Amino acid sequence: MGEPIVLEPIGIIRSPFHSTDEAPHLGSEAGIEGELVVDPRYRDAMFGLEAGRKVLILYWLHLADRGRLQVHPRGDRTRPLRGVFSTRSPHRPNPIGADLVEVLEIRGTTIRVKGLDALDGTLLLDIKKEV
Amino acid sequence: MGEPIVLEPIGIIRSPFHSTDEAPHLGSEAGIEGELVVDPRYRDAMFGLEAGRKVLILYWLHLADRGRLQVHPRGDRTRPLRGVFSTRSPHRPNPIGADLVEVLEIRGTTIRVKGLDALDGTLLLDIKKEV
Repeated sequence: MGEPIVLEPIGIIRSPFHSTDEAPHLGSEAGIEGELVVDPRYRDAMFGLEAGRKVLILYWLHLADRGRLQVHPRGDRTRPLRGVFSTRSPHRPNPIGADLVEVLEIRGTTIRVKGLDALDGTLLLDIKKEV
Repeated sequence: MGEPIVLEPIGIIRSPFHSTDEAPHLGSEAGIEGELVVDPRYRDAMFGLEAGRKVLILYWLHLADRGRLQVHPRGDRTRPLRGVFSTRSPHRPNPIGADLVEVLEIRGTTIRVKGLDALDGTLLLDIKKEV
């Protein structure tokens, strides 16, 4: 399959959640606020980001079980198992999280956002214009 | 920063486009149809996917320039440079493409979809419930 696919974190996510017990299942619904702390070497890549816009962020779900192919949605054992590709479970072969967040404020290379799911300390992989 | 982040393709994308010259800048706008050919070992992860639903797909942009931090949007040199994090350019530090596609039909581990941007032969990384 060619070269191995290796990712490089572009920064870190600061959120109010320090464990999966505290984190909401869909922060985007709860309007959770936090910060994207971008590595200063990627400062030029931030040009054009503006408060008030939505962006899609990708991040690394380092606690995920990459071998799990089915889950109970939202961890609710009363709900029947589903394949992870039909859910937003963190457990999946390539555990990349995707959230659509609103940019609230940009200061230097720190971006305050609303709509986070991620735990504090999560490695940030990408920021993109809304899908 | 801990362990290196290494991804494993879960399948391959079949699309009508064989070069970046042919590909649309936003296939999702053009309603381009193609197939997600999932590796059979991930069959159980597909349980619950249904025709008519939208899913977010992630894939590897193997032709990207990972060192480019600014681009002319949609490759149009008359438009001013922007930081890649405020665009959907394939060129970015972690070149992961994200498209919201509609599931048209599922046959075995092949999923026919509408709204693709990707080139034929692109490595598929993830399928998720719509953001």
